[in-house]
Amino acid sequence: MTPRRLELVALPQIPTVERGDDVAGLVLDGLRRLRRRLKSGDVVVIAQKIVSKAEGRTVDLATVKPSARAKVLARKSDKDPRVVELILAESSEVLRVRSGLIVVAHRQGFVLANAGIDQSNVAADGTERALLLPRDPDASCRRLRKQLKVKAGADVAVIINDSVGRAWRLGTVGTALGAAGLPSLLDLRGMPDMFGRILRVTQVGLADQLASAASLVQGEAGEGTPIVLVRGFRRFAANQTAATLIRPKIEDLFR
Amino acid sequence: MTPRRLELVALPQIPTVERGDDVAGLVLDGLRRLRRRLKSGDVVVIAQKIVSKAEGRTVDLATVKPSARAKVLARKSDKDPRVVELILAESSEVLRVRSGLIVVAHRQGFVLANAGIDQSNVAADGTERALLLPRDPDASCRRLRKQLKVKAGADVAVIINDSVGRAWRLGTVGTALGAAGLPSLLDLRGMPDMFGRILRVTQVGLADQLASAASLVQGEAGEGTPIVLVRGFRRFAANQTAATLIRPKIEDLFR
Repeated sequence: MTPRRLELVALPQIPTVERGDDVAGLVLDGLRRLRRRLKSGDVVVIAQKIVSKAEGRTVDLATVKPSARAKVLARKSDKDPRVVELILAESSEVLRVRSGLIVVAHRQGFVLANAGIDQSNVAADGTERALLLPRDPDASCRRLRKQLKVKAGADVAVIINDSVGRAWRLGTVGTALGAAGLPSLLDLRGMPDMFGRILRVTQVGLADQLASAASLVQGEAGEGTPIVLVRGFRRFAANQTAATLIRPKIEDLFR
Repeated sequence: MTPRRLELVALPQIPTVERGDDVAGLVLDGLRRLRRRLKSGDVVVIAQKIVSKAEGRTVDLATVKPSARAKVLARKSDKDPRVVELILAESSEVLRVRSGLIVVAHRQGFVLANAGIDQSNVAADGTERALLLPRDPDASCRRLRKQLKVKAGADVAVIINDSVGRAWRLGTVGTALGAAGLPSLLDLRGMPDMFGRILRVTQVGLADQLASAASLVQGEAGEGTPIVLVRGFRRFAANQTAATLIRPKIEDLFR
């Protein structure tokens, strides 16, 4: 199961993405520039931003009317009330508030800052815009995986990743917001170790580890390499969403 | 700074490690088997277990006398009182207790389950043993980095990783317990994005992302591939510990 060697390649010259763009097509165009073809077992990791843009998740802030609740929270957090309105609309629960920071449970279940709403890297045409997460990142991954199967004939896994902050540790790490075609939460329970003991570590966040690995070649600062090919796995036997990785609230000791 | 392509290779046939073994020598032996040489900019990621074993951090449980406090906590957590004694000795604070689980702040600062103490993959000679984390993983990385520089003439980064659980999400991910020779917490503050805006995401957990990436080829279940070569970065300009990644308690909203 575990590969001995993995290759991570950022696909070159991915153009700026606009609403309605064909993300699967961008993956295949990028591979063609590298003279590569998709193979079964490949993992394609795609930055959330370009999926969100293609899905038209850009919001013109001039169109947002903040609610009374958003205005109160905006004062507490020193944030734009219109952005706070979007954060609240995208969330099921507000967990913590500090200056510049609103940690929420996103309606998709992820715990993250500011509901993952981004005001950087969105094309600047004078209007103030925000970019929301894809409506259903797991569904986006399923769709992209099917399109890649049809267009390239390969049985690949697809992950949508984003840079997400963490409890206890500084710095963001690439995290899987969506996944399809792989065992996102790899279950090792009952497997023996080298000495025949049963393993203590039981479940591995495989999709998150792939999301972090891909982030190493995606870069953050205007480098325009949002799509990463990960090669080295065999075809995966299991197919789980990224939602599988969300710890149920009732079992979470740190919310 | 961001590479376009990364290669991750698990070094083959690393033998079982015993107290006093030369870990830098194991790295170079493993590379030789692959007919590779270290290059400046390479990152060597080493599983915590083999560093701990080489440093003699194995404890015979028969020698451990649980304190009254350990006995109480052992009842609360359904754990072996001797293991709980070790957990307490390795920790500065107990954060949460559940059946089978004691989440602590390790004396090195990491928040993790059971103080990172491992009862699997430790050689079974009949005695019951536990394996503690290295005494000072950052110091171990500095030492290994120097030894690799002397023996192979290359200026590499070294990370000691372990599979660590998280708040909010299921599954462990590879996490940097020690680091040397790289900017563990990569600071992008003030860098412009593709459209000239100043980036919102400011600090990236580079060492943790590398730790997770390496974990993809290390495997968990008796696969014996604890050392990973990561190739593709240029020589790093900054040199930070993994302790840099620990969020100061006073700033942590989730402890």
